[in-house]
Amino acid sequence: MRFDTLIINANLATMNEEFGFGRGTAYGAVANAALGIVDGKIAWIGSMAELSTHHADERIDACGGWLTPALLDCHTHLVYAGNRSDEFEMRLTGVDYTTIAKNGGGILSTVRATRQASFEQLYEQSLPRFLALVNQGVATIEIKSGYGLDLDSERKMLQVAKKLGEDYGISVQKTYLAAHALPPEYQGDADAYIEKVCQWLPILHAEGLVDAVDAFCEKIAFTIEQVARVFKVAQSLNLPVKLHAEQLSDMGGSGLVASFRGLSADHIEYLSSGDIVKMAAADTVAVLLPTAFYCLRETKVPPIDELRSHAVKMAVSTDCNPGTSPSVSLMLAMNMACTLFRLTPEEALAGTTIHAACALGLPNKGKLAVGCDADLAIWQIDRPADLSYLIGQNVLKQLIIAGKSRH
Amino acid sequence: MRFDTLIINANLATMNEEFGFGRGTAYGAVANAALGIVDGKIAWIGSMAELSTHHADERIDACGGWLTPALLDCHTHLVYAGNRSDEFEMRLTGVDYTTIAKNGGGILSTVRATRQASFEQLYEQSLPRFLALVNQGVATIEIKSGYGLDLDSERKMLQVAKKLGEDYGISVQKTYLAAHALPPEYQGDADAYIEKVCQWLPILHAEGLVDAVDAFCEKIAFTIEQVARVFKVAQSLNLPVKLHAEQLSDMGGSGLVASFRGLSADHIEYLSSGDIVKMAAADTVAVLLPTAFYCLRETKVPPIDELRSHAVKMAVSTDCNPGTSPSVSLMLAMNMACTLFRLTPEEALAGTTIHAACALGLPNKGKLAVGCDADLAIWQIDRPADLSYLIGQNVLKQLIIAGKSRH
Ligand SMILES: [Zn+2]
Ligand SMILES: [Zn+2]
Repeated sequence: MRFDTLIINANLATMNEEFGFGRGTAYGAVANAALGIVDGKIAWIGSMAELSTHHADERIDACGGWLTPALLDCHTHLVYAGNRSDEFEMRLTGVDYTTIAKNGGGILSTVRATRQASFEQLYEQSLPRFLALVNQGVATIEIKSGYGLDLDSERKMLQVAKKLGEDYGISVQKTYLAAHALPPEYQGDADAYIEKVCQWLPILHAEGLVDAVDAFCEKIAFTIEQVARVFKVAQSLNLPVKLHAEQLSDMGGSGLVASFRGLSADHIEYLSSGDIVKMAAADTVAVLLPTAFYCLRETKVPPIDELRSHAVKMAVSTDCNPGTSPSVSLMLAMNMACTLFRLTPEEALAGTTIHAACALGLPNKGKLAVGCDADLAIWQIDRPADLSYLIGQNVLKQLIIAGKSRH
Repeated sequence: MRFDTLIINANLATMNEEFGFGRGTAYGAVANAALGIVDGKIAWIGSMAELSTHHADERIDACGGWLTPALLDCHTHLVYAGNRSDEFEMRLTGVDYTTIAKNGGGILSTVRATRQASFEQLYEQSLPRFLALVNQGVATIEIKSGYGLDLDSERKMLQVAKKLGEDYGISVQKTYLAAHALPPEYQGDADAYIEKVCQWLPILHAEGLVDAVDAFCEKIAFTIEQVARVFKVAQSLNLPVKLHAEQLSDMGGSGLVASFRGLSADHIEYLSSGDIVKMAAADTVAVLLPTAFYCLRETKVPPIDELRSHAVKMAVSTDCNPGTSPSVSLMLAMNMACTLFRLTPEEALAGTTIHAACALGLPNKGKLAVGCDADLAIWQIDRPADLSYLIGQNVLKQLIIAGKSRH
């Protein structure tokens, strides 16, 4: 065969069933292997011994490092303006929540700053967060709207998300999350706001700005009935849904997502047994956000064992946002998933590769398999567990996106 | 005045009493300021308005960013060989501790690997950890021995630490920690090993390899009497002492350190009120290691309020080590000090600047003051609290060590 690019001397964490992932071979690992790329897709996976019969225009020597699918961050709010470190500091110096809210703090301060920012300002402020992820091996990033809360500002957020992806050749999945919080102009009339959320969705979808629809189902946000109204519009547009569910209490949101055969239920600290069964039946992914759990000093851990026993896929994401998870480290999210939620390092890596791809509805990403996108990461590590074990150390050697090295 | 280098358009977090730090001006902050450097020392601090009367060979424009003292990491074990992610993974897959120990796991696996490594191998394996700290704004790093546990291997560790500092122009403080664990060849005879520890210390000190002396005082390590024997030798050599104390139980180690007027008591989750009083009287610094607390999933927080009320200085450090804190992020340690221990962001920054300098006995570092070393960090941030708030984002714009920019 002839390859555009051939990666040699690599240990592969394929995360692929064909190589035994999930069936007894940890990480679907293949030692001392090579991987060939044609037209941005994985064209061949084999052993170093079989190399001689192949020709390649370019060779990349992994020098015995590990090759994994490039990581996917499947739940972020990284496009926003403003900075809430002042609130972080106020809380730690003993200022009470009421005073912070009176001073215009909380999520609405981010809404205010995001509305006021121009497209360029919003882009510029979001870029360092975006690049921090990419520089740590992330090639697919989900980005939500939800700090605009009016048509023009939601559009602006999604346009910035789209442009970030285009400018840097990163696969950006754009999620419409207008049902994130109630904007000040609708205080006391959440139903009227939800009506607007339903009206704006077809408009933004027609502009090519929406890949999926999300909402925040919680006592401090929207009811399950309100979320269902938004989901029905999504359904009519053939858009997949997902939900911020069961973070602070059990609202039954995860069951609702499953009833729509949704992509994922996210947070899910308070997920019930009944909803786990529904998620399993609908193949809805459980997205774990341990950095938010850590920042909020939560104590109730998601029901990991029960998710395992029902074979619900678990993804792991940063939840990058200014209020409850000002983090751009997906590797730290993996470490926290292990340390705080007791995932295994293999589950954590699956959570940022194959299962994150499932959470985004992207079957051609997140694993090393012939025909899949050649989004790959080469790491200078001894074993895949290092990706969950190491804290604060960037061990990425090379990121390859659609077959092309990013420098 | 004439300066070698002048930094302009900076907001200063001086961490200096003269500018109100600790006396009502948070961070000892000075807005819209400039700082002049002569011969590697801070020669002048003033406002932008006063600039015209000064000449500078080189100007650095901070562009409205923040200038702080370069950070100091005052407690690390970053020189070691081997990798314990296998143990991390085994624990998470349910392998019990006895089995791990039988397979040669735990601290003794690091001892074995460190003994076997050549000087060059040890240097090469430690370098990425060392540089990860430096690349995040750290210009002074304390590095302990303690994985050699015989004369030659302890010497090798300290020589590697020394060479890392020399090669990269970083101030490395070398700490002798032979009383870290009992080596296999002394099992059952800790007193005989401590005798050796006392004999080796003057030898390594004479070779210029020891700046301070540390030990691990714990039921699983050494008794307070054994530690006192080592400290007495240190005292006879005029070497300052410090201690891993009260991490898992109250052994009274912090009181012992204070009785030697030691630099610091480190960990101190189980620190008693009586020992806090002794530390305050001796000006012994409390070194907080929240990343280890996090990794071990500890629940007992150090007595922060009581340390505050006795005006004991608190430092914050990574505790970088392969067993209980495989972290090279000092900013994450600051975030964890705030999130888990409820330090304020100002206390966290003091903990990695002025108070870390106290913990290392380096009065000329850790603050912006005329006459102090020009070890400086310029950050692209809105306010100093960002350094504790942001997770996984490297906002360092420029690191200046002894007046010279590091590129
Ligand atoms: Zn979220
Ligand atoms: Zn330590």
